[in-house]
Amino acid sequence: MTRSPLAQPKQAPQERQYILTLGCPDSTGIVSHLSSFLTGIGAWITEAHFFSDPESKWFFTRQAVRADELDMTLEEVREAFRPIVEQLGPEARWKISDNGVPKRAVILVTKEGHCLQDLLGRVDQNDYPMDVAAVIGNHDNLEPLARAHGVPFHHVPFPKDAIGKRRAFDEVAELVNAENPDAIVLARFMQILPPDLCEMWEGRAINIHHSFLPSFMGARPYHQAHKRGVKLIGATCHYATSDLDDGPIIEQDVIRVSHKDTPRDMQREGRDAEKQVLARGLRWHLEDRVQVYGNRTVVFD
Amino acid sequence: MTRSPLAQPKQAPQERQYILTLGCPDSTGIVSHLSSFLTGIGAWITEAHFFSDPESKWFFTRQAVRADELDMTLEEVREAFRPIVEQLGPEARWKISDNGVPKRAVILVTKEGHCLQDLLGRVDQNDYPMDVAAVIGNHDNLEPLARAHGVPFHHVPFPKDAIGKRRAFDEVAELVNAENPDAIVLARFMQILPPDLCEMWEGRAINIHHSFLPSFMGARPYHQAHKRGVKLIGATCHYATSDLDDGPIIEQDVIRVSHKDTPRDMQREGRDAEKQVLARGLRWHLEDRVQVYGNRTVVFD
Amino acid sequence: MTRSPLAQPKQAPQERQYILTLGCPDSTGIVSHLSSFLTGIGAWITEAHFFSDPESKWFFTRQAVRADELDMTLEEVREAFRPIVEQLGPEARWKISDNGVPKRAVILVTKEGHCLQDLLGRVDQNDYPMDVAAVIGNHDNLEPLARAHGVPFHHVPFPKDAIGKRRAFDEVAELVNAENPDAIVLARFMQILPPDLCEMWEGRAINIHHSFLPSFMGARPYHQAHKRGVKLIGATCHYATSDLDDGPIIEQDVIRVSHKDTPRDMQREGRDAEKQVLARGLRWHLEDRVQVYGNRTVVFD
Amino acid sequence: MTRSPLAQPKQAPQERQYILTLGCPDSTGIVSHLSSFLTGIGAWITEAHFFSDPESKWFFTRQAVRADELDMTLEEVREAFRPIVEQLGPEARWKISDNGVPKRAVILVTKEGHCLQDLLGRVDQNDYPMDVAAVIGNHDNLEPLARAHGVPFHHVPFPKDAIGKRRAFDEVAELVNAENPDAIVLARFMQILPPDLCEMWEGRAINIHHSFLPSFMGARPYHQAHKRGVKLIGATCHYATSDLDDGPIIEQDVIRVSHKDTPRDMQREGRDAEKQVLARGLRWHLEDRVQVYGNRTVVFD
Repeated sequence: MTRSPLAQPKQAPQERQYILTLGCPDSTGIVSHLSSFLTGIGAWITEAHFFSDPESKWFFTRQAVRADELDMTLEEVREAFRPIVEQLGPEARWKISDNGVPKRAVILVTKEGHCLQDLLGRVDQNDYPMDVAAVIGNHDNLEPLARAHGVPFHHVPFPKDAIGKRRAFDEVAELVNAENPDAIVLARFMQILPPDLCEMWEGRAINIHHSFLPSFMGARPYHQAHKRGVKLIGATCHYATSDLDDGPIIEQDVIRVSHKDTPRDMQREGRDAEKQVLARGLRWHLEDRVQVYGNRTVVFD
Repeated sequence: MTRSPLAQPKQAPQERQYILTLGCPDSTGIVSHLSSFLTGIGAWITEAHFFSDPESKWFFTRQAVRADELDMTLEEVREAFRPIVEQLGPEARWKISDNGVPKRAVILVTKEGHCLQDLLGRVDQNDYPMDVAAVIGNHDNLEPLARAHGVPFHHVPFPKDAIGKRRAFDEVAELVNAENPDAIVLARFMQILPPDLCEMWEGRAINIHHSFLPSFMGARPYHQAHKRGVKLIGATCHYATSDLDDGPIIEQDVIRVSHKDTPRDMQREGRDAEKQVLARGLRWHLEDRVQVYGNRTVVFD
Repeated sequence: MTRSPLAQPKQAPQERQYILTLGCPDSTGIVSHLSSFLTGIGAWITEAHFFSDPESKWFFTRQAVRADELDMTLEEVREAFRPIVEQLGPEARWKISDNGVPKRAVILVTKEGHCLQDLLGRVDQNDYPMDVAAVIGNHDNLEPLARAHGVPFHHVPFPKDAIGKRRAFDEVAELVNAENPDAIVLARFMQILPPDLCEMWEGRAINIHHSFLPSFMGARPYHQAHKRGVKLIGATCHYATSDLDDGPIIEQDVIRVSHKDTPRDMQREGRDAEKQVLARGLRWHLEDRVQVYGNRTVVFD
Repeated sequence: MTRSPLAQPKQAPQERQYILTLGCPDSTGIVSHLSSFLTGIGAWITEAHFFSDPESKWFFTRQAVRADELDMTLEEVREAFRPIVEQLGPEARWKISDNGVPKRAVILVTKEGHCLQDLLGRVDQNDYPMDVAAVIGNHDNLEPLARAHGVPFHHVPFPKDAIGKRRAFDEVAELVNAENPDAIVLARFMQILPPDLCEMWEGRAINIHHSFLPSFMGARPYHQAHKRGVKLIGATCHYATSDLDDGPIIEQDVIRVSHKDTPRDMQREGRDAEKQVLARGLRWHLEDRVQVYGNRTVVFD
């Protein structure tokens, strides 16, 4: 990955950590089981979160340990953990990652550039745990912005007809998959992902919707909000699923509006909410702070 | 009106004001027309708000003048204004009130008392421009609370059958209308007002809904919110209309929730939002700061 | 403790829990040490928080376990834990409590009643994990409010002279200590606690200050805020210490103001912030969610 | 002014307006006096704000009229208004501007680029009523960022010694004054403006301070905030005056922090508040929504 010509000098790194995340059916003794393991390998836990969902009876955890105090590589930790997790049943889902390795993202855009601009800026300010592998746009107006930040831009025009659109999606999928990204960010990408792509990128495709869902699903939410006369507008960051606007919500926020605000004013003001909410939700995803169960999320922030 | 035995001593009054509110079709010169009138009668304007709605082409204003600097009674000011407003066309709606005369409210409740408790407390702390003429409940558990604050309580049980329910509503209507209140406050009143009462009390009946409308209309919004996995819950204060949960919104607010919150936690936390949002929205109504157009409101706060 | 005549019927109880809180010098293996103990006694952990402070090198935790699934009384759990905690060094501070036993509070007031009104209302709505043992006022205007809620009120007048004031404090201390409360709530109590009382009630005396500390320490913070022309005012809930306005902060919040707000408007609007911030901070204290280190707090919410 | 190579296509313009702002000693009839004038020239008022400060007895207004419905140039409106304003006394301060003419800004920076990045992005997204004439830095690391947006960058190194520093300020002043900007934006410019520059740029020099003033004046506010254990951190946008950190506040906001946040976390999170608060405050300044009186501001938003 080339470095952005606008990138600022890096600060001395924060402490490097291995991050363990786990979801499994709940039972007595899991916490003890896990912490015995971590103590056994000599791990110094710096952050630990737990959650037992009383409805689904699932248990979730995220634990961060100091990587530099451990005499093991990431792969060795994973190997050591495998037999431990097997005792938690076949349904257990887990992951151990190294926060010293920046996550990779591909960003999909249409015409509006405020979210892209915001994310690229955060990366260049060394403020964000992400490398941007590529930007893909169904228009080309944001190409100069991506290139100014040293990021490759792919223009994939989307025809109106179903066959042409499908071909465009296949091209996008190929470009995305070539990067094997940790996050596919729909940063005001105004095309609806087909179900097979949603499935292929499950838990990695992150959308920013310009309303406080479930209000104002569908098109032109600011116009809907204006028509209904609400006093708050908002934005929602969620995982993309084939149920449009119905994926698991990661983060939401609102801003205050008044009778004076036209739909156009709301669009302008709402962009700030969109940028913030996407930046927060995506950061939590990249830091392995989000786990999905059903259409809900656990966020260990 | 008897005084609450819990009422705190009154502070020296804030400045007494006459409040003029007006809505009419927009045209050039209205502001000048109105301010010439006010200057002509020697009025000292202390607060003035204007709004021209570009869609409906209506003009709205609220102006406050010092009552004590005027050599006219409220009735004289109204008389003097009548010919002025006639020049603004037959559609013009207007009102001049004296903020030294507290507005009167009747409060309707079911079983949950947090909003009632909050409002009666504000009144007793001399923090709220309202006299509570009566509380009406379809259960009687909140009677001691009302009586402790010196407010008459009427218990009107609501049978399940349509005829019994209608009779109960008629009894409520009679009790309410006997007080000729400026506000009929549905403070977690869990019965749906019939259309004729909505019409009779149009612009005076104020409801607090326990979600950030239009999300989670209908029953058990906190359970709906939990199921959807939202990260914000809210409350909405709106005028009651025969379109349930669809009346003009006066005020909304939200609070943050997380995966840890059960529906019951959300209910508990949401009560704070309900109290705050009702107290703010109702205050603006009582201070003549709210004007309705279509299903939207102008709020001059 | 007598029941308030205004108390609403209790809901079916939430799950009963034993709450373990612990602070001690950090080292590897503590989490494992604690969870082995909990697993050993068959405890089902429903909530667990950990924090390692990188500066002071202290470790803090709060763990909640299901009381009804445990074949041990509270006292037996404490006994069993004693040898465990001894291995963590002599500095370790810990506590195990039963959330089924409501905490007891004494509330100190002067003339303003909004915080008292708010807290008594929450208790009566069964919304708050607290019994109010007594209210003590240096004026008597809030006596009817306390009595209406079935709470004893003690009037202790405060003379202006140093000796009289000291005697008054001694009387307050005697009344407070007779109740052995878990919280001494300074709910707009406008007298400065002498150092010996601060020390005696360390970690139990909770004050609500009407500014966002450290701004506007001292008297008349709303007037100071108005003078400085800030756009936000706030409130701070903190433990009372002999360093006036400098105790460990539990919770803060702000509300927006504008050039239109007079100091009196700010006072009125600020009361809502004071009520909310005190109610949140005090709840966390009562739920054993707060631990103090230096002049800072860990809040496991 | 050259156009940024990253600039997005402009939307169809919003309505062009002439903006009249006025501050003068209060008296009866001013509103009428002004609106007679506006009606007299056939102006259609689309937005009007008024404020009478009860302490200083000054009157402030901002009125927007449709430029295209007026048969007068901006200069003609000014000419016509001159005799009107003379009747309001010699102290009256006023301005009439055309919102179709973008305001010009010079931005001063040191090393941190997040505010610069944010503002340049807003301008390029056609989201902001400003042209950036130049960026001046006392370091050169942000030069590529400015140039990527097509904005000239001037590097003016600041020596440590008093004479060298003074020379550097003189060079900055020359560069700034050559542009005759409507706003001099101190976007994390870490040098204290000397009094003569504050005076020369009075009402035009806008600073973003990284705390919620008046808390944590001076250096390293995030470290101060961490030390004090506050639960909210903030940012303040204010006019620069020779009383450091004490200028009239335009806008403030806060974000929530916890015991988990290190000073470095606070710095990172605080950057979002800084960007938002500067962007809002500067926008209001550029839209002629801010008027200063004493060390306070009227903000007609």
